[in-house]
Amino acid sequence: MALRAGVDLGGTKIQAVVLDASGGVLGAARHPTPTTGGPPDVVAAVAAAVREAAQKADVDAGELAGVGVGSPGDVDDRAGTVTSARNLPGWSGSFPVAAVLGEELGVPAWLGNDVDVATIAEFELGAGQPYTSLLGVFWGTGVGGGVVLDGRLWRGRASAGEIGHMVVKLGGARCPCGRLGCLEAYAGRGAMEARARKELGEGTRTELFKIMEKRGRTRLTSGVFARALDQGDRLATRLIDRAIEALGAGIASAVNLIDVEAVIIGGGLGIRLGQPYADRIEREMLPHLFSDYRPPAVHVAALGDLGGATGAALMVQGDRSVATGL
Amino acid sequence: MALRAGVDLGGTKIQAVVLDASGGVLGAARHPTPTTGGPPDVVAAVAAAVREAAQKADVDAGELAGVGVGSPGDVDDRAGTVTSARNLPGWSGSFPVAAVLGEELGVPAWLGNDVDVATIAEFELGAGQPYTSLLGVFWGTGVGGGVVLDGRLWRGRASAGEIGHMVVKLGGARCPCGRLGCLEAYAGRGAMEARARKELGEGTRTELFKIMEKRGRTRLTSGVFARALDQGDRLATRLIDRAIEALGAGIASAVNLIDVEAVIIGGGLGIRLGQPYADRIEREMLPHLFSDYRPPAVHVAALGDLGGATGAALMVQGDRSVATGL
Repeated sequence: MALRAGVDLGGTKIQAVVLDASGGVLGAARHPTPTTGGPPDVVAAVAAAVREAAQKADVDAGELAGVGVGSPGDVDDRAGTVTSARNLPGWSGSFPVAAVLGEELGVPAWLGNDVDVATIAEFELGAGQPYTSLLGVFWGTGVGGGVVLDGRLWRGRASAGEIGHMVVKLGGARCPCGRLGCLEAYAGRGAMEARARKELGEGTRTELFKIMEKRGRTRLTSGVFARALDQGDRLATRLIDRAIEALGAGIASAVNLIDVEAVIIGGGLGIRLGQPYADRIEREMLPHLFSDYRPPAVHVAALGDLGGATGAALMVQGDRSVATGL
Repeated sequence: MALRAGVDLGGTKIQAVVLDASGGVLGAARHPTPTTGGPPDVVAAVAAAVREAAQKADVDAGELAGVGVGSPGDVDDRAGTVTSARNLPGWSGSFPVAAVLGEELGVPAWLGNDVDVATIAEFELGAGQPYTSLLGVFWGTGVGGGVVLDGRLWRGRASAGEIGHMVVKLGGARCPCGRLGCLEAYAGRGAMEARARKELGEGTRTELFKIMEKRGRTRLTSGVFARALDQGDRLATRLIDRAIEALGAGIASAVNLIDVEAVIIGGGLGIRLGQPYADRIEREMLPHLFSDYRPPAVHVAALGDLGGATGAALMVQGDRSVATGL
């Protein structure tokens, strides 16, 4: 099989990889996601990232077996379209990502949900390899989830896996999605940042924003949180403690319902904070697990921040892409 | 195919049915569950209920194709054993229910989890027939759940479906299971009764216990709650409102995770309170559903309180029972 490319299309960065037949990374490139313009500009930036990754892998983009894209927003994998991706510029309507990207690169293109493809990557090549059922939890700006049952991704009617919007506290905190008491309202990086800004305005002392500025950031990234925790910052510690408590309850609830063998913790915060924090999540799950004599295994995502792009590449198959017709 | 018998073995009653080939009920019998003795006494009572149901169906128990039993406790369906069923008398150890019952009746016997078989009954013969994926919610003394995905019961590592122990309120009420904030802590009949007794002791005025006594009961049964609601009893109304709020959040959380097509509400309270209350649960789900433009269908269990026994009978197959060797 020829080389496959995969792209993780995120709100801040576009990560591209080129994989060999066994899933090894031969080349990788990371570009910032355009913050202005619209879908054609974003897809052009995706194509540029793929070309750079191909160059590093010493192959011409046109020689690739194909390219897969893991995207946020409302993804129609059969049609190859992305609709209303709020974290991407000018993307309120629908855009044929697979067709336009395939045309641009001259290779067949596949499209999938970003969290789903990251889950499949961990299942096939990462920390989920020993298991036939698992829950992928992507702890980042939001909290996403992917469900593998009996060796296959379970998507329900198309939107299974929304663990971030499981209710962990009736009448609880307001979630960025607008609802009350969601897991993401406590554990999402975005929600934590909003709360930190509010507390800063109310006079709470914290190093979080000083670290942010020192690093030339405009957001409280995972790295900013990690540094603040290292420095013993009280607000950061309190927000992360609260996130871990909510993650423990939400993940345990999910396991009580579907009783999977393993939980894989990925996402920006999950990967940056790593095993010590995955261990803490595991401990917070225990008091809520119904079959607590047989807890699931809990691992950090093994593919790190290349997992999404790797999973996207795995969508590339020997046959033709439905979305591009190539 | 010859006639099949099924038994729903509950903490208060033993319900037996005899089904024809298409799942129609030809005979039924209900006996009280022994409150003293041990597993052999319970199994003898199960055999008596089967014999009576067979008699009503005009067939000899020994001529049945077999008998299935849906049981509480820790059920090993392959071994045909039930371990530590806390609602059954003297049942702390393990007992070979299928083997002893099969021997007693002279027919092969099957054993399954009570909630799983009730879910399968609704899926194959009841309100779940139009769907390929559903969540069965059994709202009774506890809150049990069964998960059907892609046309098959999903059991995970053996204990999937514990929706009653999904966390709906971090740091919330104490559940009969000992944990904090479980759905069952708010919605289980047992938990509601405990709270009603506590409030009565604190001076809250309620008709609940007068209705209970008038009916010659010692527990706040589903019927007692239903009558108190009809009379506008404030405590009963408040407890049921709280239960429905928690059910809405817990079921919506489950749907956000596994995105099933339908939710079937069964169990003693679910069936007794019926469609108006299922409609209220559906409304309480909406604010928590992530894909709220496409909510699942919500139905009351169509097989009523014969669902568990009917589902147990469906376990009887043409081939031999692993558990009994017959």
